Amino acid sequence: MAACIFCRIIKGEIPSLKIFESEKTLAFLDIGPLSKGHSLVIPKYHGAKLHDVPDDQLHEVLSIAKRIAIAQGLQDYNILQNNGKIAHQQVDHVHFHVIPKPNETEGLGISWPTKEVDKSELQALLEDIKSKI
Amino acid sequence: MAACIFCRIIKGEIPSLKIFESEKTLAFLDIGPLSKGHSLVIPKYHGAKLHDVPDDQLHEVLSIAKRIAIAQGLQDYNILQNNGKIAHQQVDHVHFHVIPKPNETEGLGISWPTKEVDKSELQALLEDIKSKI
Ligand SMILES: [Zn+2]
Ligand SMILES: [Zn+2]
Repeated sequence: MAACIFCRIIKGEIPSLKIFESEKTLAFLDIGPLSKGHSLVIPKYHGAKLHDVPDDQLHEVLSIAKRIAIAQGLQDYNILQNNGKIAHQQVDHVHFHVIPKPNETEGLGISWPTKEVDKSELQALLEDIKSKI
Repeated sequence: MAACIFCRIIKGEIPSLKIFESEKTLAFLDIGPLSKGHSLVIPKYHGAKLHDVPDDQLHEVLSIAKRIAIAQGLQDYNILQNNGKIAHQQVDHVHFHVIPKPNETEGLGISWPTKEVDKSELQALLEDIKSKI
């Protein structure tokens, strides 16, 4: 993916504020942070969305997110991975945000519009998902 | 953790709409969904926050989130894990949301208040995190 900005960061063609690097994973500071310490953890494997990335390229991701949280002494933070423009994905290479939440105004803003659903609808959906998983 | 609702679900003391279960991991439908198919993936290990859960209890989580997305044929969705009440955590047992984003109004609502930061501040922060990771 010659044009992918994260693949270019991985190759070292574009500089980054690199926190951690291993064979399969890279972590760096987000240069447009929502809060101090906002970091990204990415598999080096190029996949646009989570379902495009093989399992064995994902195993380290959460451990590294965890290490970044611990290194900063974070207690309140969000881990977020967006798939699709409508879901707020801005770079088409899978990335996990580690976003400190120091107060109400900084960090990730979330709204939580829960839906009313009836039990039978959920049960039917469950059977459908289970049949396909 | 006798009082933890997710530990009780894991033990079968409270029913759940179970999608997937393995030795270390459980996935079930969220009964207060943000959109159709909103699911939770949890390590069976009780930890309140991500940094409380040992790495070996986390390795499967993203693979299972991925399988849930694929089983539903999702293209647009968010993976979210909240730590701390201020960061919108509602149950104090680590859980990863898989939230389909079918349209602007359903699914996770996100606001993205980026901050201006200067390069030298980021560089100093990077050195600090790297020294602790
Ligand atoms: Zn890429
Ligand atoms: Zn628990």
